[in-house]
Amino acid sequence: MKKQKRPFRTREEIRDGIFRAVLKAKNDKPLIGSITNTVTANFVANAQLASGGLAAMVYLPEEGEALARSAEAFYINMGTFFPFYAESLTQTAKVLWALGKPWVLDPVGVGLGTLRTAVLRDIRKYNPSILRGNASEIIALANLWQVDSGKAKSDLKGVDAMQRVCDAKRAALSLARDLGGVVAVSGDVDFITDGHLSAFSFGGSPWFTKITGAGCSLGGVAAVYAAGAPPFIAALAATALYNLAGQRAQEKTQGPAHFQIQFLDELYQATPEEIANHPFNVEEEEDLI
Amino acid sequence: MKKQKRPFRTREEIRDGIFRAVLKAKNDKPLIGSITNTVTANFVANAQLASGGLAAMVYLPEEGEALARSAEAFYINMGTFFPFYAESLTQTAKVLWALGKPWVLDPVGVGLGTLRTAVLRDIRKYNPSILRGNASEIIALANLWQVDSGKAKSDLKGVDAMQRVCDAKRAALSLARDLGGVVAVSGDVDFITDGHLSAFSFGGSPWFTKITGAGCSLGGVAAVYAAGAPPFIAALAATALYNLAGQRAQEKTQGPAHFQIQFLDELYQATPEEIANHPFNVEEEEDLI
Amino acid sequence: MKKQKRPFRTREEIRDGIFRAVLKAKNDKPLIGSITNTVTANFVANAQLASGGLAAMVYLPEEGEALARSAEAFYINMGTFFPFYAESLTQTAKVLWALGKPWVLDPVGVGLGTLRTAVLRDIRKYNPSILRGNASEIIALANLWQVDSGKAKSDLKGVDAMQRVCDAKRAALSLARDLGGVVAVSGDVDFITDGHLSAFSFGGSPWFTKITGAGCSLGGVAAVYAAGAPPFIAALAATALYNLAGQRAQEKTQGPAHFQIQFLDELYQATPEEIANHPFNVEEEEDLI
Repeated sequence: MKKQKRPFRTREEIRDGIFRAVLKAKNDKPLIGSITNTVTANFVANAQLASGGLAAMVYLPEEGEALARSAEAFYINMGTFFPFYAESLTQTAKVLWALGKPWVLDPVGVGLGTLRTAVLRDIRKYNPSILRGNASEIIALANLWQVDSGKAKSDLKGVDAMQRVCDAKRAALSLARDLGGVVAVSGDVDFITDGHLSAFSFGGSPWFTKITGAGCSLGGVAAVYAAGAPPFIAALAATALYNLAGQRAQEKTQGPAHFQIQFLDELYQATPEEIANHPFNVEEEEDLI
Repeated sequence: MKKQKRPFRTREEIRDGIFRAVLKAKNDKPLIGSITNTVTANFVANAQLASGGLAAMVYLPEEGEALARSAEAFYINMGTFFPFYAESLTQTAKVLWALGKPWVLDPVGVGLGTLRTAVLRDIRKYNPSILRGNASEIIALANLWQVDSGKAKSDLKGVDAMQRVCDAKRAALSLARDLGGVVAVSGDVDFITDGHLSAFSFGGSPWFTKITGAGCSLGGVAAVYAAGAPPFIAALAATALYNLAGQRAQEKTQGPAHFQIQFLDELYQATPEEIANHPFNVEEEEDLI
Repeated sequence: MKKQKRPFRTREEIRDGIFRAVLKAKNDKPLIGSITNTVTANFVANAQLASGGLAAMVYLPEEGEALARSAEAFYINMGTFFPFYAESLTQTAKVLWALGKPWVLDPVGVGLGTLRTAVLRDIRKYNPSILRGNASEIIALANLWQVDSGKAKSDLKGVDAMQRVCDAKRAALSLARDLGGVVAVSGDVDFITDGHLSAFSFGGSPWFTKITGAGCSLGGVAAVYAAGAPPFIAALAATALYNLAGQRAQEKTQGPAHFQIQFLDELYQATPEEIANHPFNVEEEEDLI
């Protein structure tokens, strides 16, 4: 665990960082590689395109490695495992880590099956820049990796289930310090931390739990921003965008499917200023022990 | 083949069963596992969420087994076969059968290839609670399993092709009796039978044949209801919901894509009362021989 | 390379060919087999349904072969490779070639990984009727197959990236002559050639680059038309439909997701007359050397 030097600390500096991250993604159109589940891959790709990135998705080990070399950031989502994923995920992560490229890990399905568990244990050493999950997943991963979760227990029930974010706060802080990275917990209120500096982001929509892939695509967009910004800023910017676009889409729609369509359009239409000005709180974390 | 004892027989009792099945799904949010094709998995998951369930989808044998243990019902759709599916599908079905959990089988692509045929032969002994397909698929499966189809021949032409439901009636009755389960045949008019009691459900939309996955997602929703209701009620409730939501969506839209979006919203918005009151006919079947 | 005898040459004959191709697809509902990527498979299937075809998608070698026998045309998209694709793609292509059935090759991801490269080298001998890609992909394939690309270099950056179509003109002509087939280059202006007769099609929408799968689904629709029309007419008809529907959808929508929904509806609603009358230019190509 190493403490990162941050070029931002105050809310104003963070807000400015978000603004520049979003603007840069729209201008640079970074290529984002993904190994992601088949259920929501389309949504992830369209969300990445909406936020400015270019999306490329692969499954094979050698293609994950090659894409890790050519992409500017990467998104690894463990959703639908294939037999050869032990190789694909760890080899891709290894290349990303060796090249110092930012990557996002979405530990969907943590706890299900021995292969997935083995890969999650193994991939830890390649230090994802951003770890994204709901409260249940973050707690389950803290327990799997044996970092301090404050003895919280995970209540896993389906990929779209939600435990309360505050229950996962200690697990998130511990994971972030352990990884030297950022952990983003999605829920009613969203919590983003690098283990020392934390932010809470507000907004979004209850519809997020009624469409599959809201969390996955948030992770995919975090990778887009991480291509050109520090992980903490990238995770917070993606979360702010989701909370803003979710609110706006909810005001205009009556059901989950129209919500999803409107939401994707709002992802595209939100400006850097609007995303940076979306409300968030910041706190400095005291030592955990 | 064993005759099931039914707590319902009259239209009023059936209607009441549908009401309670739909209400229970909305309240309980049952976790539904699926092994389903990659083409329509997103639609299936969103339809399951709209009807109240939580969706989790896997491919691997050990993950299918694990999910069969934790889920409250399961949906197995044979659409896009992977090489390891002989293991995945049969082992998952075996666990479901051993635990007495309800599961839905969607024999998409029956007749295509030797592996798929072998798996369909093998999986029969694990007695799906609900078998769902269009007329062509039900006839093809009856012929494959050598139960009496009244010598109907299957006219398979693409997963979205339709033979007339009445052609598949005898095959459906035979399959239901053979399995001790329920068979649901989708078409212009939908036919649901446990081999002794049958129902016809009306409505829907011609657009169903112009979007991919209407049938798959109906099977997925039947699994949601089957988590908390007898298979006959679950299959009929899902069919009634589809016929109601399809009609409503058709009245409000002009093309297949807007239809699909509106349809998903209607799935979410339909109330237990409305679904229970959607028109259906009931008939007691005489002995076939 | 053999020069095909064409029953059309003038703009009027071509326009008449398009009209008949579109009408025939709507009437005949040809079964189109596909091996295509998991990210956009749903979009491809819905676009095929919208244009009149029936869609069936598989992955396994023996199922690709079986579907190649029963389908009237085939679409092979290399997007998301699985380990067994060396067999699936080449064996399916071999059957299509042996039976003289029309098929479309979409070389997504050309240049990524050794397996994909080996398959692309190998599949060449089975002569795809239509090769569809963006400018970068067509140039990369010409260089891989060592046909004359006028020394153009491919600038591959993500599956949705675009090089200028004019840069790929020589590569397209060379590939078409080499294959004895048709090459369709997608971009701001679309270029379709059989190596001797070429057409430019206009219209479409910048939104095409903001949704994933516009190119894939165009390839899928080209296969629908190729079931009942010469490859040149099929590729041009699909391109004209996309340019028409894209324009219309853009006029009615403000964001990429609503655009995609409206676009699919426009695909369905466009009449044979409208598609045939969508503007295109024709030119006879001189000898390249």
